[in-house]
Amino acid sequence: MSSAALPSLLDDLASLFRPDQLVTDPDVMESLAHDDAEWAPWVLPAVVVRAGSAADVQAVVRAAIRHGVPVVPRGSGTGLSGGANAVAGSIVIDLSRMNEIKIIDPTERLAVVGPGVINDDLRAAVAEQGLWYPPDPASSPWSSIGGNVATNAGGVCCVKYGVTRDYVLALEVVTGRGEIVRIGTQTAKGVAGYDLTSLLVGSEGTLGIVTEITVRLRRARPVEHTVVGYFDSITDAGLAVTRLAESGVVPSALELVDRKCLEAVDAWKNMGLSADANVILLGRTDAPGQAGAQEASAMVAAFEAGGATWSAQTDDPAEGDALFAARRLSYPALERLGPVLTEDICLPLRQVPAMLARIEAIAAEHETTIANIAHVGDGNLHPLLITPIGDEAARQRAQAAFADIIAGCLELGGTVTGEHGVGLLKLDGLAAELDPVVQRMQADVKAALDPYGILNPGKAIVSVPPRD
Amino acid sequence: MSSAALPSLLDDLASLFRPDQLVTDPDVMESLAHDDAEWAPWVLPAVVVRAGSAADVQAVVRAAIRHGVPVVPRGSGTGLSGGANAVAGSIVIDLSRMNEIKIIDPTERLAVVGPGVINDDLRAAVAEQGLWYPPDPASSPWSSIGGNVATNAGGVCCVKYGVTRDYVLALEVVTGRGEIVRIGTQTAKGVAGYDLTSLLVGSEGTLGIVTEITVRLRRARPVEHTVVGYFDSITDAGLAVTRLAESGVVPSALELVDRKCLEAVDAWKNMGLSADANVILLGRTDAPGQAGAQEASAMVAAFEAGGATWSAQTDDPAEGDALFAARRLSYPALERLGPVLTEDICLPLRQVPAMLARIEAIAAEHETTIANIAHVGDGNLHPLLITPIGDEAARQRAQAAFADIIAGCLELGGTVTGEHGVGLLKLDGLAAELDPVVQRMQADVKAALDPYGILNPGKAIVSVPPRD
Repeated sequence: MSSAALPSLLDDLASLFRPDQLVTDPDVMESLAHDDAEWAPWVLPAVVVRAGSAADVQAVVRAAIRHGVPVVPRGSGTGLSGGANAVAGSIVIDLSRMNEIKIIDPTERLAVVGPGVINDDLRAAVAEQGLWYPPDPASSPWSSIGGNVATNAGGVCCVKYGVTRDYVLALEVVTGRGEIVRIGTQTAKGVAGYDLTSLLVGSEGTLGIVTEITVRLRRARPVEHTVVGYFDSITDAGLAVTRLAESGVVPSALELVDRKCLEAVDAWKNMGLSADANVILLGRTDAPGQAGAQEASAMVAAFEAGGATWSAQTDDPAEGDALFAARRLSYPALERLGPVLTEDICLPLRQVPAMLARIEAIAAEHETTIANIAHVGDGNLHPLLITPIGDEAARQRAQAAFADIIAGCLELGGTVTGEHGVGLLKLDGLAAELDPVVQRMQADVKAALDPYGILNPGKAIVSVPPRD
Repeated sequence: MSSAALPSLLDDLASLFRPDQLVTDPDVMESLAHDDAEWAPWVLPAVVVRAGSAADVQAVVRAAIRHGVPVVPRGSGTGLSGGANAVAGSIVIDLSRMNEIKIIDPTERLAVVGPGVINDDLRAAVAEQGLWYPPDPASSPWSSIGGNVATNAGGVCCVKYGVTRDYVLALEVVTGRGEIVRIGTQTAKGVAGYDLTSLLVGSEGTLGIVTEITVRLRRARPVEHTVVGYFDSITDAGLAVTRLAESGVVPSALELVDRKCLEAVDAWKNMGLSADANVILLGRTDAPGQAGAQEASAMVAAFEAGGATWSAQTDDPAEGDALFAARRLSYPALERLGPVLTEDICLPLRQVPAMLARIEAIAAEHETTIANIAHVGDGNLHPLLITPIGDEAARQRAQAAFADIIAGCLELGGTVTGEHGVGLLKLDGLAAELDPVVQRMQADVKAALDPYGILNPGKAIVSVPPRD
């Protein structure tokens, strides 16, 4: 052989990185080998590299090409679909150290950040300059912008302000061939060739590894009015949502919290919510000035038209946050009962009441505790399946319920993931949702941009065999 | 040979379509062989097929694959970059008969339309149900939604409401392999696999031919307030734009009209504009209720802080339209002077005054008449280059000016096309703007989705040689 023998993967990486950048300790690797998705499979990777720059990421990808091993990028690991879970023999690239806010530009209304910047840190930094970064996933205190981009994260304000993709202007990316490229524009508009930026957003690291993100910002908005309504039933709350839609008001948040959540919060915080309500609707409006007060009143009227047993509104931020406590505390309250699998289906708005009824029936059929938090304004439901730790039979029943929820969602014209991404958990659902020709198109795009098949393989899209 | 000999392309198509769907008359074909882009090359195609359904489009694409000839889709032919221009031996598919508005759904706030539906017709139809389709290119009375999707068309309201891509939820597409597929979702959110929908929008028919479009709608908005400011110079107007940005107001329109436009309008309509102003800024706000009046007043204050010699505001729609007459009449007024080549550059906002100054210098250097209409709120400038009919020397000078404008835009960090698309006119600019690796990625995506190379070849992206 004329070429020198290839060193081992670890020797190769050791020649490229400082010791503090390489993790091979199994205990440390375990904490970096998966995200927060319950039930999604993962294994220890071969090694974790803590990247500090795009050049580092490029060096890892080139090493992965040389050695023919997969690369699995991760940010904070708060994903809920297993997109960051390590696969056998892989290199996990931890991007959390790349957390610099490089530019905040009030004139152009944009910011340039590393992928490891925490969502809330970006929001706080731009707020100091009178600006607002809207995407607000519930994980915003912990999740990274890079992870938000990878999953096209949503949040509470999506109903009025859209999702992460709507705020990504440009990306720096390490490609599947180990090149560093910039895609997108730094201008407000631009149609120069294909929109690779939108293609990369939501691709879960399978088409490139994002090393810098230019986000679009909005001006800080007026203080929101908060409205709450208590209801006896899902049917009544659904009617209130319909009445609100008919009123023409577009809320800046519209959340539903069901009885199972209220009971869990009461059991933890003794707030007495479940004594007064079976379902709570929480709405917000950020319309400016007098219009905000008018929209809040219209929201109260819609809630009452739907049969609210109690309703209230406030323009005091502290009072508004207190009213939202039921929503905010639901998830941690439920986690006290056991591991929570967060579903993430999205339906046409008119199908939301029917889907909530199906979920109730599925829970009864499979004897599974299913609570519901819902971004009801955009049809995005988060059924939360709770199983006691160590109860294998309960877990199997819950998995059957999970499958039935997905099947029911598709029957009603929905999609298997609204904002959490496909990862590993929704691969079966994706295969059921998408036309095989579309699956093939997605695989063809993947093969075109990741010719060595090393970028987070097995995630985000259905694996279909290569063409002859 | 065991297989039957392939019939000629025309015989093949004649067996598939009614005679009224096939155009081979050169005079008729000439009117269907190009769009409205001055200077962009075109030739007569082999044939024009007037498609009436997705199945028709599929039949054409399959025939094109059999015969190895290009397919060039067209809507109304109002494009300004040559994207719909026929190439040698091609089949032009005229989609203008597919103009059915199939669904308007106020609950889900969406509409489903054929690609041939005219923008203004959609806007009028949804307005009857209290809804609004925001994208408003200046061509809206004539351009089709399919064409708007192909070029990711913008318009006046983009500064607040975004571009066509922001309103496309789902597409039915005939692929480069002749399959009919549906991509995207019918729900408000969705991250099921790669965002092929955003990829197709703006791809000018090079990745698939769009046969149905599901668009997102907004609720009808309040009546806009209109504000006008007259200025002595571009510098003063630029300062007013900066002051407006600093005020925190996000206008629903912010347009600049320069002296060359005003003179042309005066020469046609005798409005006396150019006696009073060298530059006019036109702003709008659609903030609700009292906030609208406040924002209009803030806009006036910003204009005056920039040195406006006269300013006014109105909430009367007819008066507002009268104030906008200078903007609306500019293009037809300039066309009276000779063929108009519409440039379409987009810059960071802070570079807009510098770019306008460069355009003035370039016009002087190349002795070319260049008027300026600008969506100044989002940095999208439309320098309009006018050459007298038949003056070949003037045309050559104008082409040199065109190239200098593009070079200057790139030097200042801009993009060569904000909303008109690449087509044929911006291919050289695109090659100068994009990293060769990005050009390669775009070509790889094209090859993956159009393996026979038949979909509108030579448009939208830079042609790079295939990989070994």
